[in-house]
Amino acid sequence: MTADDPVHAFVPGPRATMAPTGHGPLDGLSFAVKDLFDVQGHPTTYGNPDWARTHPVAAATAPAVLALLEAGARLVGKTKTVELAFGLTGENIHHGTPVNPKAPDRFPGGSSCGSAAAVAAGLVDLALGSDTGGSVRIPASYCGVFGIRPSWGAVSLTGARALGPAFDTCGWFARSARVLRLAGDALLPPEVHSPESLGPVLKAQSVWINAEPATAAALLPAFEALEQVVGLGVAVRVEGFPGILDRTYEAFRCIQAQEAWATLGSWIEATKPSFGPGVGERFAAAKAMSPDKAAEGRHFRARFCQRIRAVLAGGGVFAYPTSPMPAPLLSASLAEQDAVRARSMGVTAIAGLVGLCEVSIPAGQVGGAPVGLSLVAGPGRDRALLALAERVSQAMGLEAA
Amino acid sequence: MTADDPVHAFVPGPRATMAPTGHGPLDGLSFAVKDLFDVQGHPTTYGNPDWARTHPVAAATAPAVLALLEAGARLVGKTKTVELAFGLTGENIHHGTPVNPKAPDRFPGGSSCGSAAAVAAGLVDLALGSDTGGSVRIPASYCGVFGIRPSWGAVSLTGARALGPAFDTCGWFARSARVLRLAGDALLPPEVHSPESLGPVLKAQSVWINAEPATAAALLPAFEALEQVVGLGVAVRVEGFPGILDRTYEAFRCIQAQEAWATLGSWIEATKPSFGPGVGERFAAAKAMSPDKAAEGRHFRARFCQRIRAVLAGGGVFAYPTSPMPAPLLSASLAEQDAVRARSMGVTAIAGLVGLCEVSIPAGQVGGAPVGLSLVAGPGRDRALLALAERVSQAMGLEAA
Repeated sequence: MTADDPVHAFVPGPRATMAPTGHGPLDGLSFAVKDLFDVQGHPTTYGNPDWARTHPVAAATAPAVLALLEAGARLVGKTKTVELAFGLTGENIHHGTPVNPKAPDRFPGGSSCGSAAAVAAGLVDLALGSDTGGSVRIPASYCGVFGIRPSWGAVSLTGARALGPAFDTCGWFARSARVLRLAGDALLPPEVHSPESLGPVLKAQSVWINAEPATAAALLPAFEALEQVVGLGVAVRVEGFPGILDRTYEAFRCIQAQEAWATLGSWIEATKPSFGPGVGERFAAAKAMSPDKAAEGRHFRARFCQRIRAVLAGGGVFAYPTSPMPAPLLSASLAEQDAVRARSMGVTAIAGLVGLCEVSIPAGQVGGAPVGLSLVAGPGRDRALLALAERVSQAMGLEAA
Repeated sequence: MTADDPVHAFVPGPRATMAPTGHGPLDGLSFAVKDLFDVQGHPTTYGNPDWARTHPVAAATAPAVLALLEAGARLVGKTKTVELAFGLTGENIHHGTPVNPKAPDRFPGGSSCGSAAAVAAGLVDLALGSDTGGSVRIPASYCGVFGIRPSWGAVSLTGARALGPAFDTCGWFARSARVLRLAGDALLPPEVHSPESLGPVLKAQSVWINAEPATAAALLPAFEALEQVVGLGVAVRVEGFPGILDRTYEAFRCIQAQEAWATLGSWIEATKPSFGPGVGERFAAAKAMSPDKAAEGRHFRARFCQRIRAVLAGGGVFAYPTSPMPAPLLSASLAEQDAVRARSMGVTAIAGLVGLCEVSIPAGQVGGAPVGLSLVAGPGRDRALLALAERVSQAMGLEAA
């Protein structure tokens, strides 16, 4: 534990720093980047020493990082990631698991664990992460900060390592909805829809029912604040598929497995890397995934996409708990962690399968541990969603209007 | 020149073959894949021996390849690509440049040169390629076959090598619009827009004026056939920017350079690969690209995207020459090739910058060499565009109704 990194958020070794290259909305702010984005002259470890050893130092800086520098922000370091970004607890036995600043006896969440911890601890104003199956949203919820998974394809992942390109997105964290939105101004493409066009609020009952009662109860006041801002909430089931969260989980899991092995299997087979608990097992399961199950997942995905996009086409916004529960305790067994993972991924898979944008707001606590409320909108409505999150956050008294 | 590969379309070495894994629209058809897609158990050379030497054999098969196998097609081999897909002539000094079956004294076009040549020579019914700055559309035009660059993000590039992720797409070639469409049924996500919704035809005068007069004249009958199918054509300038094709070229070139170096620079710096004529120079230029010029390119891109998406939002279809001229002669100097490249990329950059879908129809000849007519529609309208290309092709007598 060093004085400038009390929560072990940054990767070991010399800090990757870069001065701002321009002036803009992020003037005076500091940021960190998950160590799967390239920063020129520095290794990109991808959370695993064997990866670092078998890949060259970065010759260029990822365009998403350049965009933040151009907008006035200062890079102060690279943050820890779960190995190859394949995990949701935030554990990394090689680099050390970051401390969850808001709940030190619990996991920080991952895979963007260091970015969430650095923001939550106030070490940086802003941090880039990536989100394939929840890797920004889950640590945002667990660490009590704002986080966005943007619409799929909306923000550049050039110069970043891939896990499952069908789902990979470049997301980010901040302690205020305002800073989250300002970073969006630097990173997002222009939007066709106007910021005023979001609504009605759709409660997505299946997801609330899936949440632990204490988590749902802790987030109800935030939902009511959202209703005040947008207008009357409408209680809807996500769609007409029975057992929906089991089906989104299953489809996501099978497609992601195929994607992960197609992306990283060649390197794993050739290198035989040393992995921490759970990671190697997940890649072994990815390798063993049957093409038929992945194809079934894609068929479900196609129908689910059509349905959900139609539901959200007019500007509707789902609102539901980001995760069904707060972060698991550090003492949780691997089996308990896997159970949390499965139950959480059915929810995060909704935006993942459909390519929706999702912002998690640090809107409640359960026994002192943070839980987040997600706002979820149709593809391409990222700027409108960030603006809405800011208004809700102001209405809740989380930040000044 | 071997009996089963008279045009040198396939990469050297044992053929990568896979039997169909299902039944569907592609039953009985054969296909090849550009050698930047992974096929389990085979190297992915990316057109360069140093790449092949420094990367492991593929442990998995790219999902796009799996989708064609599932739809009933048989994989018969991997086809040549320009090194690291960074070039439009189709030359590869390491593996040998494929012959253009329709114009043997001219380049086949690239970077998906082997896929276009294999389809044009009748060696396969269908072939996968990739298109960043024209790498499917240009060889389709040069070799007289159908080719599609789908909407950005519409078809999986998982398990495929990247050149510029902001622009990279998975496209394909066929000798008939019907087979092109059937492959789309296997590869494309479901579409929200109905197939009937395309029109009116928009002539995009700037692009016609940019074409050599003989090329424009050769494609006018096809344009008239298109008008017959869709209804009256409307002559429009692409938009309100003066000198538009210079600006699209410049924006595309600068962003692509930044993307290419961010994606491949680390490997190039670490490996110092041996490159053929032009390729090393293009990467050197990519390395030297100033962030300011790339940022300027992105600013132009943002405004251009908004304008063009608005123009096409109602279902309009641009129609213009895919390339301003037929393939350059094999005897063309590097300077002549570069001039053709610059003049062509201003046109291909339209779909590239905006993420539009584009189908090139083998609709004319100039002095015996093929030239293509492109139909270009808004993002996500791929299935409708393929259906329209088939109707136009039937109206032109290129295939049976």
